[in-house]
Amino acid sequence: MSKNTKVNAAILIIGNEILSGRTQDTNTGTLATWLNSIGVKVNEVRVVPDEEKIIVDTLNLLRKGYNYVFTTGGIGPTHDDITAQSVSKAFNRKYELNKEAFKILESYYKPGEFNEGRQKMVWMPEGAELILNPTSGAPGFSVDNVFCLPGVPSILKSMLGGLKNKIVGGSPILSHTISLRTVESEIANSLTRVQKQNKDVEIGSYPFFQAGKLGVSIVIRSEDQSKIDLCNSQILDFVSKMKIEVVDR
Amino acid sequence: MSKNTKVNAAILIIGNEILSGRTQDTNTGTLATWLNSIGVKVNEVRVVPDEEKIIVDTLNLLRKGYNYVFTTGGIGPTHDDITAQSVSKAFNRKYELNKEAFKILESYYKPGEFNEGRQKMVWMPEGAELILNPTSGAPGFSVDNVFCLPGVPSILKSMLGGLKNKIVGGSPILSHTISLRTVESEIANSLTRVQKQNKDVEIGSYPFFQAGKLGVSIVIRSEDQSKIDLCNSQILDFVSKMKIEVVDR
Repeated sequence: MSKNTKVNAAILIIGNEILSGRTQDTNTGTLATWLNSIGVKVNEVRVVPDEEKIIVDTLNLLRKGYNYVFTTGGIGPTHDDITAQSVSKAFNRKYELNKEAFKILESYYKPGEFNEGRQKMVWMPEGAELILNPTSGAPGFSVDNVFCLPGVPSILKSMLGGLKNKIVGGSPILSHTISLRTVESEIANSLTRVQKQNKDVEIGSYPFFQAGKLGVSIVIRSEDQSKIDLCNSQILDFVSKMKIEVVDR
Repeated sequence: MSKNTKVNAAILIIGNEILSGRTQDTNTGTLATWLNSIGVKVNEVRVVPDEEKIIVDTLNLLRKGYNYVFTTGGIGPTHDDITAQSVSKAFNRKYELNKEAFKILESYYKPGEFNEGRQKMVWMPEGAELILNPTSGAPGFSVDNVFCLPGVPSILKSMLGGLKNKIVGGSPILSHTISLRTVESEIANSLTRVQKQNKDVEIGSYPFFQAGKLGVSIVIRSEDQSKIDLCNSQILDFVSKMKIEVVDR
């Protein structure tokens, strides 16, 4: 199934608040959906605490293993925001005031409001490229194949548009979902047969419970629409023979 | 801050559906919150695809690095459910029919309904201990310090009760939240001072946007209530001096 031969990415979520269960991560879904649409497949996600050594080590591993790495969180003004200094260490670059970011925030805030706390947000690895932030001013940044985004979901979302021409993806990953009124165990064998006949297509099976009724969604994923269509017809074929109700296709 | 000297855990989320963005993981929050309450701190979360080699390698790394590992997903009846066979490989144990699980499911289903697809769910590593499933019958299992749970959030939740006396935690991790009507940059310096004076307490700062107003939640975490109280008073002290409104404490 998914070989790592295509354009791939890892997501590194930085934040004690996710590990403690206080905050529900939603950035993975946002990033993964957007990356799929531009032909980048997310192969791994890691959540790590706000600890420099762990961030540095994990980042150095991921950036060598994947085409792209996206970090979320830790670029704000407080003591627990240590992503920029950690990325500097990982790349062995100076952690310094970024003049372009300074100018952006200087004109973003009213006179006198660009205080010391806020100025921390313009310290970045030497040579970092900015990722503009149309929501709250403070930019993210990238170094080589590592893209550092904020943790606040609405701000992160608003910054993806500005990233698009910096990421070179492969063919978009297409998907098709068939929802059935059945349970997984009824279709397991037939589905296994279809998967074996279509080894380079990713077929997932996910039970759901909706409006008091059990069902199964089958998700077919590939870069090749004709392969999806073939799987789809093979699945609908056994579904029809087994007289299983199709809820949605 | 968090050193790995306490009882800790990693969560391994197995499933293409999380990596593709199709499904939003909520099991991390459920597990982390529950583990905190019994004195186990989650230090790392990884999401990996439904690929045996990756699962085996990741599991072998995590189970040696942490006191406990919790896996979610991949224990259903379909071809993409490969957690049990991957755990068998990771521990170098036989992947075999678990007689106890067989009996449970045989009596759970009506006569004739315990078909081949469902029987796949009783195949487990040799010597696995069962984790009972009060919702849908099919048990999870544990091998040594690895606990394998399903991916469906409601089923996972219902199985935690049965896990409690299998997990030996440390002191519960206590937390206190102070919500302020301010922005992070206003309090960044003062908060850094408090953190420096209380190095073994974890202080996090999280902006929020509620009912049209910006605010910051400060979260103080420690096993020691008196340390939390000390931080709390130091924070309320500078907050009061700066005339910042306390929304919630």
